[in-house]
Amino acid sequence: MNSKLVVYNSLSGKKEVFKPLHPKRVGMYVCGPTVYNKVHLGNCRTFISFDLILRYLRFLGYKVRYVRNITDAGHLEYDADQGEDRISKRARLEQIEPMEVVQKYTLDFHKCLSKFNVLPPDIEPTASGHIIEQIELIKSIIEKGFAYERNGSVYFDVLKYNKSHQYGILSNRDIEELVHNTRELDGQDDKKNPQDFALWKKAEPRHIMRWPSPWSDGFPGWHLECTAMSSKYLGETFDIHGGGMDLKFPHHECEIAQSTAVNGKPPVNYWIHGNLLTLNGKKMAKSTGSFLLPDDIFDGTSSLLNKSYSPNVVRFFMLQAHYRSILDISESALIASEKGLARLLDGFQTLKNLKQGSDEMNFDYESWLEQCHQVMNDDFNSPLLIAQCFTAIKFIQKVDHSRKKIDGQLIQNLKTGLKSFLFDVMGLLPEEPESTQKENSKLSHQLIEILLDIRKDAREKGDYTTSDKIRNELSKTGVELKDTHLGTEYQMK
Amino acid sequence: MNSKLVVYNSLSGKKEVFKPLHPKRVGMYVCGPTVYNKVHLGNCRTFISFDLILRYLRFLGYKVRYVRNITDAGHLEYDADQGEDRISKRARLEQIEPMEVVQKYTLDFHKCLSKFNVLPPDIEPTASGHIIEQIELIKSIIEKGFAYERNGSVYFDVLKYNKSHQYGILSNRDIEELVHNTRELDGQDDKKNPQDFALWKKAEPRHIMRWPSPWSDGFPGWHLECTAMSSKYLGETFDIHGGGMDLKFPHHECEIAQSTAVNGKPPVNYWIHGNLLTLNGKKMAKSTGSFLLPDDIFDGTSSLLNKSYSPNVVRFFMLQAHYRSILDISESALIASEKGLARLLDGFQTLKNLKQGSDEMNFDYESWLEQCHQVMNDDFNSPLLIAQCFTAIKFIQKVDHSRKKIDGQLIQNLKTGLKSFLFDVMGLLPEEPESTQKENSKLSHQLIEILLDIRKDAREKGDYTTSDKIRNELSKTGVELKDTHLGTEYQMK
Repeated sequence: MNSKLVVYNSLSGKKEVFKPLHPKRVGMYVCGPTVYNKVHLGNCRTFISFDLILRYLRFLGYKVRYVRNITDAGHLEYDADQGEDRISKRARLEQIEPMEVVQKYTLDFHKCLSKFNVLPPDIEPTASGHIIEQIELIKSIIEKGFAYERNGSVYFDVLKYNKSHQYGILSNRDIEELVHNTRELDGQDDKKNPQDFALWKKAEPRHIMRWPSPWSDGFPGWHLECTAMSSKYLGETFDIHGGGMDLKFPHHECEIAQSTAVNGKPPVNYWIHGNLLTLNGKKMAKSTGSFLLPDDIFDGTSSLLNKSYSPNVVRFFMLQAHYRSILDISESALIASEKGLARLLDGFQTLKNLKQGSDEMNFDYESWLEQCHQVMNDDFNSPLLIAQCFTAIKFIQKVDHSRKKIDGQLIQNLKTGLKSFLFDVMGLLPEEPESTQKENSKLSHQLIEILLDIRKDAREKGDYTTSDKIRNELSKTGVELKDTHLGTEYQMK
Repeated sequence: MNSKLVVYNSLSGKKEVFKPLHPKRVGMYVCGPTVYNKVHLGNCRTFISFDLILRYLRFLGYKVRYVRNITDAGHLEYDADQGEDRISKRARLEQIEPMEVVQKYTLDFHKCLSKFNVLPPDIEPTASGHIIEQIELIKSIIEKGFAYERNGSVYFDVLKYNKSHQYGILSNRDIEELVHNTRELDGQDDKKNPQDFALWKKAEPRHIMRWPSPWSDGFPGWHLECTAMSSKYLGETFDIHGGGMDLKFPHHECEIAQSTAVNGKPPVNYWIHGNLLTLNGKKMAKSTGSFLLPDDIFDGTSSLLNKSYSPNVVRFFMLQAHYRSILDISESALIASEKGLARLLDGFQTLKNLKQGSDEMNFDYESWLEQCHQVMNDDFNSPLLIAQCFTAIKFIQKVDHSRKKIDGQLIQNLKTGLKSFLFDVMGLLPEEPESTQKENSKLSHQLIEILLDIRKDAREKGDYTTSDKIRNELSKTGVELKDTHLGTEYQMK
């Protein structure tokens, strides 16, 4: 293929040709969930977006080491440096151990992503599993002069860092503006300046999740874990760092500062941010009550929707938007996606019905394939890839309806090409396992009804040979008939 | 119910009445896998045994906190204090990061246990996630005088411990005998005595998995993690500690010593050990090549078996032996289990066909239920519970065959009782999801064949009204007929 992979780098605000540090290898880190409640659909969009990126990189032949963390410590309410730990709070409310909360919602998260056919990461480190690495990192930042200790807590000195480096480089924020806009909160007196952020917090007596450190019994700051874990498993500088748009500031900005403070160089070559999933135009958030839970959509129990939609349909719906566009979810959009996906999957199945033979209808497969690569190489443009797939499916349906023949090699090519892009790259499932089962069962009932109808006709005509034959043959399959004065009933074994 | 739960305590070698530390609550710790390769069927038996115990405790109304660890660091080859870390070795062989090995085989382990319908633990701590806790524990053991440092490594002083406590209390080993039988291995010169065991090992330069500590950059000893994690999540003394029989010595013996050294009291009230699964009378082990992988059994690809067996059948097979008995796996035993399970599940389904009405056949449900509790209360005797279930199923089949009526309340009771013991306590699945699908599909084909046969009869008699009706009705359900000179073919959409 001729085109090169180009990705939009949030750091430069431009599309750039993708060039990994080591040929054929990619290191990618994506911020995972804080496991203190059920993952909502907005979170899922981010992980589905990066699943598309991961799958496409692997499809291109890159050996990707994909690291996605689990935040199980240090993430306080309102992403702040004060207040209660999210997991500890939940543990208090549910009257269980914080680590029971972590286990419960980690299992929920894994189950949910697996329904969406999202591939697991190669390493899934936890914050609580890397306390030593975080303590060592803090020691280095202090040593370099960019952090200070106050009353058992350690803070990153943003103003000092900004003298030699640029704080706000990712989110394009001006330090003067930041200083001006940061509110002074109660209890933040320890900080030299309000825009400083915590690297280590001394634990209040009621705080359960605590570890010993050179400064106090406490816990690491939220921003620190990603720096400690990404550099441990991917090196001081690595290729791709991803996450939701809302993590750009302060989380990712702080990651850059922490890492640069220690290594004197930026940690990440390409920053990629996925956009939001909105509901009625508003950001999905647990705090406002405006959100959808995946299982409620799959089960059809969401009060916001009239029917259920499968994970495959919801995944397809998400891929119909580019990962950097805002996507608004609505019933009508889901219905359209359900229909569209069915057309694609049916069309793919139709391929095997096509008649091989002389070249009566043609299709420029090579240029189609080139086009598929081109749209994906242009910053992973899945909506355009879907359009490409529809072009091929339309051709297949035209051939099928016309009953004309096409070249056997073309059938094979289309099968390979569509399989790659629909299932390997976009991660769609070829069929819906459960619905197939339901369909089978529904078909059996329909077939029995036809037999009962034919048997009724036969009995009315006095053709008891036929009616008895139907009864006996059905009985062999485990379907027993019972004639009542209201008609014939049946029971399946 | 009248009987009390009695468990066999490996520590006393006797059955004891079970009395938890806190009424209605149970703390249970079970040693999990070292995630350096695919879990084999022998490992699975242990986790299925403790799943039965967990389920029964919950069924009795206990709120159980179930902790099962993942060993992802510190477990050396041959369970020794010298040699290569099992995970690092695997990482070198597979040319990936040790933590990629951990992730790969943790995912495999979870997937496998979930096929067996094994419930996840409430907390699943990892060794690498509790390095600080292990370092703190070593400090305490040194402080109490039961450990010493040599060249950056720390060892537990077994002889000194044995002066004031009893080393060998769980495995009934005599210290003199131990001293006599422990070989002097090369490179163990650091130890005062060969039976001492490592709490911290200084890492050799090639060792990747290493953490800073007061003694050296190194890693914790294998026995230490379970003491650190069980006491963190369950307290200094807790109710039940479980694991495979082969962990009794030295692993569990060392756990007792470490904990007692620090707290001056034993860590566990009831030690429970599951027995081995053997293959042709020999212990299953990766090292000898004599083992079965669960997936090979489910797929039917094992060269040691002629056909496949579902996870439900294999689980049932295991529960047919008491957890403290050695169980030998063979094709004939699996075939017998498959038949037995089918009889149980079919019998349960038959319940809903029974005719309610006058009390023509009776069954002493109360005494049956009492008996079910009694056998499970006698150290979780699942084979006797299965026998109890067969007693109920035989009664159900007798009623079904005789076409007599039984009391509606009795039907309800049997349904509740069997459901509890078969599905909640023994964790069997009511049906095989895949086979149901296949059955449905098979039924549809059988029904279509009957319709084709009836249609053929009709055509031969010149009854084209009927034959056309069959064709048209089938077409409405998506089944298209095609008459050829060889007969009628059909195609399903």
